[in-house]
Amino acid sequence: MTFERMWQDLHPVGRSATSGGYFRQPFGSAERECHAWFLEECARRDLTVRHDGNGNTVAWWGDPDGDGVLTGSHLDSVLDGGAYDGPLGVVSALAAVDLLRERGFLPRRAIGVGAFAEEEGSRFGLACLGSRLATGATTPAAARELRDRDGVPLLDAMAAAGLEPELGRSTLLDDVAVFVELHVEQGRDLVDRGHAIGVASEIWPHGRYRFDFAGEANHAGTTRMEDRHDPMLTYAMTALAAAKQARLAGQRATFGRIDVAPNGTNAVPSRVTGWLDARCATDADLAALLGEIERQAQGRAERDGTHLVVTAESVSGAVVFDPDLAARIARDHETGDWPVIPTMAGHDAGILSAAGVPTAMIFVRNPTGVSHSPDEFAPMADCLAGVDALADTLERLAG
Amino acid sequence: MTFERMWQDLHPVGRSATSGGYFRQPFGSAERECHAWFLEECARRDLTVRHDGNGNTVAWWGDPDGDGVLTGSHLDSVLDGGAYDGPLGVVSALAAVDLLRERGFLPRRAIGVGAFAEEEGSRFGLACLGSRLATGATTPAAARELRDRDGVPLLDAMAAAGLEPELGRSTLLDDVAVFVELHVEQGRDLVDRGHAIGVASEIWPHGRYRFDFAGEANHAGTTRMEDRHDPMLTYAMTALAAAKQARLAGQRATFGRIDVAPNGTNAVPSRVTGWLDARCATDADLAALLGEIERQAQGRAERDGTHLVVTAESVSGAVVFDPDLAARIARDHETGDWPVIPTMAGHDAGILSAAGVPTAMIFVRNPTGVSHSPDEFAPMADCLAGVDALADTLERLAG
Repeated sequence: MTFERMWQDLHPVGRSATSGGYFRQPFGSAERECHAWFLEECARRDLTVRHDGNGNTVAWWGDPDGDGVLTGSHLDSVLDGGAYDGPLGVVSALAAVDLLRERGFLPRRAIGVGAFAEEEGSRFGLACLGSRLATGATTPAAARELRDRDGVPLLDAMAAAGLEPELGRSTLLDDVAVFVELHVEQGRDLVDRGHAIGVASEIWPHGRYRFDFAGEANHAGTTRMEDRHDPMLTYAMTALAAAKQARLAGQRATFGRIDVAPNGTNAVPSRVTGWLDARCATDADLAALLGEIERQAQGRAERDGTHLVVTAESVSGAVVFDPDLAARIARDHETGDWPVIPTMAGHDAGILSAAGVPTAMIFVRNPTGVSHSPDEFAPMADCLAGVDALADTLERLAG
Repeated sequence: MTFERMWQDLHPVGRSATSGGYFRQPFGSAERECHAWFLEECARRDLTVRHDGNGNTVAWWGDPDGDGVLTGSHLDSVLDGGAYDGPLGVVSALAAVDLLRERGFLPRRAIGVGAFAEEEGSRFGLACLGSRLATGATTPAAARELRDRDGVPLLDAMAAAGLEPELGRSTLLDDVAVFVELHVEQGRDLVDRGHAIGVASEIWPHGRYRFDFAGEANHAGTTRMEDRHDPMLTYAMTALAAAKQARLAGQRATFGRIDVAPNGTNAVPSRVTGWLDARCATDADLAALLGEIERQAQGRAERDGTHLVVTAESVSGAVVFDPDLAARIARDHETGDWPVIPTMAGHDAGILSAAGVPTAMIFVRNPTGVSHSPDEFAPMADCLAGVDALADTLERLAG
């Protein structure tokens, strides 16, 4: 099976020897190496490669004429992420093409394998950046303002990687009539149900919000506790309140990223910035959760004598995938029907679905549910079952 | 008055145009520029300059023969610090020499002006590094292990600054019989008492402790709140508990520095490191405060399923300055006696005192009490009163 060889090829690229996690930041050297590898695999299969000016790539088997069946995912990772989130969908797509050819399948509709840019948003802060730009969900003007943690603008990062950026809605997806993204499950729904393969029903609404807490820098030794305006305390209470609120309501609220100024041991900080990642079952729930967290944070800021500004960096509404397409993919397999389950994670599939492309997702079982971590894992047998499932799906859609 | 000219000279060096704060990191370009300026000022006054291999410098007026009177302070700043903490003591010392010469004073004992290296510990984490090494309070072996935030070892940083480091106990202070450090007050005691000048009675015990909270990285969207082991929550509760504990007891506890891995918006962190700065009136109080904070933190870690390790990076016991020396300096001025007050801030004076050198400190009024901040300030009239006070003190001690 070609899957295992390809999986081994990618194994060392951008991997930390310390943590075992991956650092495949978009337009950085490790992610570029993955992308160059992807192009080689496409050439090896005589696929016709198309790029757009947003860093996205689609390689076609056959000539799509407005009715192409696209699969694929992304190659970038979060900081210190796992091997599966993204690459599993790309490698499985290439392996599914091989499997279909072995089966002697002759697609009636062209099949495309895609790799989208900056899906995680881990460098420029906006998830699904490549697919958002290609579909017009994000404007080129907004993208040009994006900077990474070192202040490098998106366009400079792309140019430094040897790309010739031309941001904005592209023709790359014009021939796509349906999109199927295969992805490692980022939860334990399939484990609990005893299935290796599942199909997505919907994506929860999701928002990223920047909380800027401003206080007053001062000496950590001489300043009496009651004379302080310490933004770290306002932040700390906010992080605890957010987690508690989400736990009670079965939602998600995470402060996983923080930036402190001046960040010195013997100085009360002047500023703390924390980023809230929040997800709920409905758009109304998400708005209510943010409102409640902000209300508690503002109350504490008043008591601490600090100042809080909340900025929404990205908000994605609920995505309900095409139910007929999901049913067509999920039903009537040798092992019975595959379960159709929701996910709380954003994906390029959500962006394409929102842009009107009939879209589906196939999940591969994750025994621990752990993701965005070096411990992210799927057993090889399940990965191979995923390749089979994707090949079967492409047969149904492109046959 | 030469003070004002010198103060203007230093004003732009290492100053952030954005915040107005100073970034004079030890052995970095701005601090080296301050040090080069200091050497020029010493040459201009025909002082005899001596260096040691720890980055400390002393310039003598006259030939000390084991009975020298040393004054001075340091030139480095915390990150985004104020103009006064450190440089005020050096500039005032040079100005006091000028004033004594204008007065026609002929010192019976040599007078030295000193600048100690890395007083703030803001680069290598250990406060008063230069004076600790010179007096043997820190071993060269321990210092060789120190690294800055970018992983640069102390020796490399010193070599890159053009120094020839030879760490360890030095002869630089062998001729020092008494040390007087002038410093901006880092509190509002003198404002409240209506005095421009004060003398230190003691320094509170002070510790810096690294709290390493280890958890489990995971996806911020898909991982249920109750399945998480989020070290950010354990940290947040610890920061709040520390502040509350210190506030109730009239002590100080600050988490001003934090480092998060992987520090991504959509990932539950795998690790959060926070640095606690704690200060109390007695050594026993400090130990009890740390114990109580750690007890609460460990309790929360158990509930969060995270793991906490606390490491003391530096602990300085109480310093009581020579009371006879303090009285000799404080008494019988035209304006009456200067108040003798405690401080919660560590200083090279504390290190020299602990090493057996009779030591005193002179404080200059700070109208807001703010320090370690761009807003740190002392009015020019009070700075000039400080020069007068230091000159008077040197007359008493060296006459």
